[in-house]
Amino acid sequence: MQLEDEEFNNRKKNALIKLDSALKNHQVDRLVIPLLEKINSTSDYFTTSSCAGRIVVLQLPEIGNKKKAVFLGRWHRIVSSEELLLALDSYVEGQVWLLTQPPIFHIGCKSITAANELMKLGISSGFKHSGIRSISSQITVELQSTERMDMPLGSNGKQVIESEKISFLVDQANTSITRAQHKLTRLQKNIMEKLC
Amino acid sequence: MQLEDEEFNNRKKNALIKLDSALKNHQVDRLVIPLLEKINSTSDYFTTSSCAGRIVVLQLPEIGNKKKAVFLGRWHRIVSSEELLLALDSYVEGQVWLLTQPPIFHIGCKSITAANELMKLGISSGFKHSGIRSISSQITVELQSTERMDMPLGSNGKQVIESEKISFLVDQANTSITRAQHKLTRLQKNIMEKLC
Repeated sequence: MQLEDEEFNNRKKNALIKLDSALKNHQVDRLVIPLLEKINSTSDYFTTSSCAGRIVVLQLPEIGNKKKAVFLGRWHRIVSSEELLLALDSYVEGQVWLLTQPPIFHIGCKSITAANELMKLGISSGFKHSGIRSISSQITVELQSTERMDMPLGSNGKQVIESEKISFLVDQANTSITRAQHKLTRLQKNIMEKLC
Repeated sequence: MQLEDEEFNNRKKNALIKLDSALKNHQVDRLVIPLLEKINSTSDYFTTSSCAGRIVVLQLPEIGNKKKAVFLGRWHRIVSSEELLLALDSYVEGQVWLLTQPPIFHIGCKSITAANELMKLGISSGFKHSGIRSISSQITVELQSTERMDMPLGSNGKQVIESEKISFLVDQANTSITRAQHKLTRLQKNIMEKLC
């Protein structure tokens, strides 16, 4: 048990060094910093990755080939049609997709009991896609909300869904990301109040 | 421990009675029946729900309001543009979305160790969104693949993405569901060979 504690503490120490570096390089979404600080201040948890939710324009060779995907646009906030159209101007080959991705957090946990507490807190905060993603070398909980859009806009380098329809899709994407940010506030409130 | 075993066996017994009834009423996707039978033949696992993956046309009051959603179309296979357009003919109010949902399974497990084995088997079979979803009253693993599309097609009772664009979206949805079914075959093979 002592060895396990030591391993947890080492992992946490390394994760905090990485986070510190990411914070210095402005690679962490401002919106989630208080939440990360709170989680990392507890004795049973530490954060390994996070995203506040985002709207993305992605060019990729074919469906599912994320390894060769290129971000044409990426925003952790609502966007304007003009911004989206500007991103689509860079689309040259393969497919192009508009995505809304929900907030997501990966959190190392000291024990299965601690992981269960955190998962339940996530689910009760509207992060319904939460679960324990690993218990082998490290116990990791993923907290994930549900708001998403995954929409192909073009194929073979040609935009099929015309620019005139983009404002409709931007409205939907913005509604989705706004809902996600409300849930993030709820999660933050619950974690601040109940996690120790 | 004996009490826990008894509880697991009771839960499994009830789950199998429900499954038997669902099979008799043809409510289980034919594609996944061998997989369910294999899982339920083991001593450490039982299935509580399953879906082979599907393409769906959904009418709903607003984004995220799934409680009041109405299925206008639902297929566990590839679809034709004509079938999709016919489903869209029934769209009258609120929003309408075209969704591709990946294969998903919920499986009761006898122990955390058994849950971990199953989760790892899922992830190595391409079911990357797998995890332990509950450990409170029952240990439940969710095995879920990644192929999904969530596309708004209309709002306020009006179809915004025109019928001429539907064949493009149907192509993408069919590619997505076909990829998902290949992964299902892979999962089935691995579970048949490795789960005991």
